[in-house]
Amino acid sequence: MTPKAETQPIVSLRERILSATDDLFRKQGIRGVGVETIAEAAGTNKMTLYRYFTSKDELIAEWLRGIIAQKDAEWDELSATYKGRPEEHLQEWSRRLAHKLAEMEKRGSILHTVIAELPEPDHPARRIIQEYKRREHRRVKRLCDEAGFQDANLAANLFYLMLEGATNCVQCVGTTQIGEHLVQLVDMMIENNRSQGRRRQPL
Amino acid sequence: MTPKAETQPIVSLRERILSATDDLFRKQGIRGVGVETIAEAAGTNKMTLYRYFTSKDELIAEWLRGIIAQKDAEWDELSATYKGRPEEHLQEWSRRLAHKLAEMEKRGSILHTVIAELPEPDHPARRIIQEYKRREHRRVKRLCDEAGFQDANLAANLFYLMLEGATNCVQCVGTTQIGEHLVQLVDMMIENNRSQGRRRQPL
Repeated sequence: MTPKAETQPIVSLRERILSATDDLFRKQGIRGVGVETIAEAAGTNKMTLYRYFTSKDELIAEWLRGIIAQKDAEWDELSATYKGRPEEHLQEWSRRLAHKLAEMEKRGSILHTVIAELPEPDHPARRIIQEYKRREHRRVKRLCDEAGFQDANLAANLFYLMLEGATNCVQCVGTTQIGEHLVQLVDMMIENNRSQGRRRQPL
Repeated sequence: MTPKAETQPIVSLRERILSATDDLFRKQGIRGVGVETIAEAAGTNKMTLYRYFTSKDELIAEWLRGIIAQKDAEWDELSATYKGRPEEHLQEWSRRLAHKLAEMEKRGSILHTVIAELPEPDHPARRIIQEYKRREHRRVKRLCDEAGFQDANLAANLFYLMLEGATNCVQCVGTTQIGEHLVQLVDMMIENNRSQGRRRQPL
């Protein structure tokens, strides 16, 4: 028996647990799902699950890290593709978000949902999400700096408000127009920025 | 014994239950708090609580109706004060929200939290919130119409995105600048609208 053959099934059970976690948390919320239900959906039992994740909180944290790693990877990919073209990067970002809004209509943004479900201010999951959001905000700020917005702080916050707002209000007002208008507004900001010589304002 | 003397304590117990509900739901989330805990905090017991609210869902719905009634009342008050002055109305609205952001930093907007905590798509609480949000969106749209924005739909969605975004991102990015920038951006939109003769765009 080689070490590879020995570790292979362990890795895949871990993945199966995380995949079941993702499915159940998205459908039923974090608080509504117990560790036993997750273990069962992954084809294992609670005791085995605890060999991989010592507590439900650790499972939540690890599941979140996976979601955030994907988001970071997407950002890195955009950064590579649009290197030196910060305006197009921002536009492409808004277009991708507009596409994602339809699927958020059912349950809203998963990160916002987690924040809402975990009221404890020092819950590790909150910290993971806050760190990601701050990182995302700094990236937007850097792009606005690069794009030469007159007031890059203000422009970055406007982008951020619109993007956070879009993921938030689709659940209530619906996606009709929101995605389309988001793209249109970001395009306008970029266009206004390009003609800023004629104007005093960053938007 | 007059009917008044008989009903008085009943009314006030109902209020006490709703007040305990508000306190506990805000601090610990909806799912984290049981009906027994609420009854105890209100100085009564579960059986008596069920004489006023037949289920936890009904208690949630009634508590939400109270919160929304306050928001509607504030909106009506603003509408009366700024009758015929839609631009100032929008500006005052953004200023009030900016003031409220600091208290939202701890737990976020209560309506967003409730939506996140109740994943069932047909939960009565979701419907109550969605109706309120749509009503709020229509009010903003009406003000943008009155204010004469060239594209009132787009302007209304921009206001709405910024306001939803502001209540959302304070929990992650913090209130530093967000409230201030929100006010500044709304002022810019109004100013741009006033000079729209010289421009083609609604923002």
